[in-house]
Amino acid sequence: MADTRKEFMDVYPVVTEELLAHLRSLSIPQNAMDWFKRSMDYNVPGGKLNRGLTVAATLRILKRDTPLSEDEIFKANLLGWCVEWLQAFFLVSDDIMDNSLTRRGQPCWYRQKEVGLVAINDAFILESAIYFFLKKHFKKHDYYVDLIELFHETTYQTELGQLLDLITAPEDSVDLSKFSIEKHAFIVKYKTAYYSFYLPVALAMHMAGVKDEAAFKQAEKILLPLGEYFQIQDDYLDCYGDPETIGKIGTDIEDNKCSWLINQALHKATPEQRKTLDENYGRREPANVRTVKNVFNEIGVEGLFKTYEEDSYSRINALIAEVDHPLLSQDVFHTFMKRIYKRTK
Amino acid sequence: MADTRKEFMDVYPVVTEELLAHLRSLSIPQNAMDWFKRSMDYNVPGGKLNRGLTVAATLRILKRDTPLSEDEIFKANLLGWCVEWLQAFFLVSDDIMDNSLTRRGQPCWYRQKEVGLVAINDAFILESAIYFFLKKHFKKHDYYVDLIELFHETTYQTELGQLLDLITAPEDSVDLSKFSIEKHAFIVKYKTAYYSFYLPVALAMHMAGVKDEAAFKQAEKILLPLGEYFQIQDDYLDCYGDPETIGKIGTDIEDNKCSWLINQALHKATPEQRKTLDENYGRREPANVRTVKNVFNEIGVEGLFKTYEEDSYSRINALIAEVDHPLLSQDVFHTFMKRIYKRTK
Repeated sequence: MADTRKEFMDVYPVVTEELLAHLRSLSIPQNAMDWFKRSMDYNVPGGKLNRGLTVAATLRILKRDTPLSEDEIFKANLLGWCVEWLQAFFLVSDDIMDNSLTRRGQPCWYRQKEVGLVAINDAFILESAIYFFLKKHFKKHDYYVDLIELFHETTYQTELGQLLDLITAPEDSVDLSKFSIEKHAFIVKYKTAYYSFYLPVALAMHMAGVKDEAAFKQAEKILLPLGEYFQIQDDYLDCYGDPETIGKIGTDIEDNKCSWLINQALHKATPEQRKTLDENYGRREPANVRTVKNVFNEIGVEGLFKTYEEDSYSRINALIAEVDHPLLSQDVFHTFMKRIYKRTK
Repeated sequence: MADTRKEFMDVYPVVTEELLAHLRSLSIPQNAMDWFKRSMDYNVPGGKLNRGLTVAATLRILKRDTPLSEDEIFKANLLGWCVEWLQAFFLVSDDIMDNSLTRRGQPCWYRQKEVGLVAINDAFILESAIYFFLKKHFKKHDYYVDLIELFHETTYQTELGQLLDLITAPEDSVDLSKFSIEKHAFIVKYKTAYYSFYLPVALAMHMAGVKDEAAFKQAEKILLPLGEYFQIQDDYLDCYGDPETIGKIGTDIEDNKCSWLINQALHKATPEQRKTLDENYGRREPANVRTVKNVFNEIGVEGLFKTYEEDSYSRINALIAEVDHPLLSQDVFHTFMKRIYKRTK
């Protein structure tokens, strides 16, 4: 495990140097080179890297009968880094749109001295790097176009999820009548599940030589619900998790987030409870937050989550048990489920 | 001419409907559909559309021996619209980064009520539309990958030009020692010339079936200097053009822009003139602007431009005269030159 992580980490300096060498060949002035490198190092490698690590891990399972060559390991890890680059593109820009203060324990990039809104263009450049890498390393492969289209479509899906999230739950104007369980499901699937769960597995499938659309459909059928389950856990932990364990103090209630909890509460609320939620959700004062949490408790939102969790667990396991495509393996999905079932952080 | 413009305009409602039909098939909630359409209609079609019109115009010249089929006209115009979508992506985000007030005679998109920084994600979606169109209409063509790579590379080039521009000439911190004629040349080539001049012609060349890299190199060799000449005219007109004719009052001096004029002035300035420029460039007060213009006059910047213009004209014409690739035509480039030589708006 430590070895595969090291293999993954070792790819980062190699591929960033490729980008910089290309810039050097364009004779870009030094101040732009320095800025470019600083932006990458600040924004790409500092996360948990689960998405990036998943590509090679999945490829190993899919090609279980033959050990991967060095070239395959490098390429799978490079695709993993492309997912991390994509995520960096999203996070740098999301933080500006959400007016966030910190990310991964440091100030958001746009809050860095001198950066400011230049961060928007930096986000674009992070996205462009993906296609530079794909062209450089995959152009000669027959699945090159599939990789490009997969990144395009996943990017678009994530942007559509972000759009709905932004206009449904703007931080500065609370209107709970805009929320609904259906919108929440759309946001979670589009904003998170496609790029975090489906993308890394589909990339590995392309590398493994899978061409059958039915295999991709089978994988998607499990990975999207898994991604939804994961995000709903996130929403739950934001309110009910131990701040020590999850490493942050949740602020979804203060931030007017369209989370699973508020949507469940709205669904079950009496007119009186609804009035209390309308008056207290999306406000900064601790008293408002306490009042919202009290309504959640009255409604039994925590219990609803526990039921949802057990239900998801059996429902997704049943889906996994149906996986029968010869080019897939149930292990790919069990690995995910093991990592997230009843997680506390 | 009016006919080709109408043909171009008629494509817009067709292809926007394609995007919306796709969103409908995803069951995206109505508020997101409405927002999406409003963002496109506000940001894509309102410009001069020269870049978009160039694709079909160039294809007509390249295939001068056979009239274009309806399908070819539609596709060339769709590629033209893809250039306009790309430009919308750049302009929506540039306006945020530059803190601009108006664009094309209306408030910038991000200044619209309720929009604000959601405009960043709207810009991303405008970019994503390009690849939706390419996949839908060009996937079966042998130049599909070439089109995708051309858009990727042009996008990246423009972002690199924007990066250098933003960090060389930030509006809030004037430091003329950061400017140089070399940086100006890089910014102009990367931020403007590639996407405005090379891209539309190269798209038409792909549609015309050109495969020979040498033909693309020949076109680039003329179109990049043409783009540089065009942008330097823009810089000149911002200061010396007639506001009535160009339709706006130039503010490059106030905005600390790294324009051709200031770089020429810095290059020729005596130590005393340099001091005056340092003290007055990039400031809002009319007195500062007048002082800068006086130094420009002392140095004879307007005359330097006239010399540059004549020199560019003969230099680029000489380059055009060298065009001998059987799949190209000198007419493609003469058309551009006719439109821009000694333009006053």
